[in-house]
Amino acid sequence: MKPTPVLEIFGPTIQGEGMVIGRKTMFVRTGGCDYRCSWCDSAFTWDGSQKAVAMSAEAIYEKLKEAGGRSFNHVTISGGNPAMHPGLGELVALLQEQGIETAIETQGSIWNDWVKEIDEVTVSPKPPSSLMKTDWSRLDYYMEELRPRKEKEVSLKVVVFDESDLNYAMEVHERYPAVTMYLQVGNDDTVTPQVEKLRDHLLAKYEWLTEKVLQEERLNGVRVLPQLHTLLWGNKQGV
Amino acid sequence: MKPTPVLEIFGPTIQGEGMVIGRKTMFVRTGGCDYRCSWCDSAFTWDGSQKAVAMSAEAIYEKLKEAGGRSFNHVTISGGNPAMHPGLGELVALLQEQGIETAIETQGSIWNDWVKEIDEVTVSPKPPSSLMKTDWSRLDYYMEELRPRKEKEVSLKVVVFDESDLNYAMEVHERYPAVTMYLQVGNDDTVTPQVEKLRDHLLAKYEWLTEKVLQEERLNGVRVLPQLHTLLWGNKQGV
Ligand code: SF4
Ligand code: SF4
Repeated sequence: MKPTPVLEIFGPTIQGEGMVIGRKTMFVRTGGCDYRCSWCDSAFTWDGSQKAVAMSAEAIYEKLKEAGGRSFNHVTISGGNPAMHPGLGELVALLQEQGIETAIETQGSIWNDWVKEIDEVTVSPKPPSSLMKTDWSRLDYYMEELRPRKEKEVSLKVVVFDESDLNYAMEVHERYPAVTMYLQVGNDDTVTPQVEKLRDHLLAKYEWLTEKVLQEERLNGVRVLPQLHTLLWGNKQGV
Repeated sequence: MKPTPVLEIFGPTIQGEGMVIGRKTMFVRTGGCDYRCSWCDSAFTWDGSQKAVAMSAEAIYEKLKEAGGRSFNHVTISGGNPAMHPGLGELVALLQEQGIETAIETQGSIWNDWVKEIDEVTVSPKPPSSLMKTDWSRLDYYMEELRPRKEKEVSLKVVVFDESDLNYAMEVHERYPAVTMYLQVGNDDTVTPQVEKLRDHLLAKYEWLTEKVLQEERLNGVRVLPQLHTLLWGNKQGV
């Protein structure tokens, strides 16, 4: 039993982004990240402002049931970078035994074998605006490991704030052309409490991003999405 | 060569709803429908207010290229009820020859064999608020025909305006439990030109629908989505 640092367990709520957008799910958010993205919207998972609790797989599952009752059959593991934690393999196995599907989002920098068991893996390499540098050989390894999975899905997701992020997204898309690619509008105001204003602002940015994608032949196959939870609830944590 | 009545061909734009939400796509909208839904948002396809043009598969493809240039690899066939038109089989074959993927949305009341060739089929039976009556044996036949397709996807979508629509959606979900089910917020104001007001109104309704789904154990596996194009562009036609 290897405990995992957990920052929040909540739900059921709606997955607001990416390949399972709209799906009813529970969230387990782990602490710790090997990155420090300039615009990280969950910096509280690594900047010391909130304290993680070390939890066993069983304890996490108990907490999920306590929060979600019987109203869920899907769990999203998020971070931070959840792929850092070897103990989550036990959680994934436990959830599968209960017939519960799992999804994860990770930047693809640290491999753990249990990632292969996850039903929906979103690999989200970080574009230039994050100020992080992609280690392409690690990412290649990730995508290669995830390639031959049966009845399980993988997608790429790049958050786009500006033109150079968009160029980066094209590079990623062309490097892994067989993998469905999602582009997501970056939220450049993660502190405002004004939901309606943030909503109009983010939809204007979404419109900008769709226009760019619509004009660009190299992005014919991609999918462009906003973050639904941010449109609904703004920057509130734990929804 | 069987011509098809076509009302509009436009794009590239973003698919705003359902299983391929966010995907860059072209639209072909056919005329004619065997239904008369009370809240139909494309009544102009059947109420005589706009005139369809009879077009061959080749002519439709030419028009798609004229509008979209090389900036698309996906075409959505929409209506009305596009599954009424036998000539569309030629269009689907032609697009496939060109490496272009296809999607369709139909209420599942009229079968045509070419529907089986479509990459992403959305079957959207209509709930009580539409004032239409579902012919379950026809719908069963539809879902049975679409079941054994390889590398092609099928989903169900129900538009929800009220509680009785939600009950209907549960009935559909339980009848075809293996098929991914999308619930979509109904747009109850298809005439207002005020985009921001409509946006806030529809997001409030989306929040209502997600709350309902989150509480309901019978809807654990479903996905709840708004219409992105309506959030962006309101009730404008042809975007
Ligand atoms: S990888 Fe994700 S959690 Fe880590 S710093 Fe970047 S945005 Fe934040
Ligand atoms: S089935 Fe679709 S196109 Fe036909 S009347 Fe109903 S909503 Fe309109």
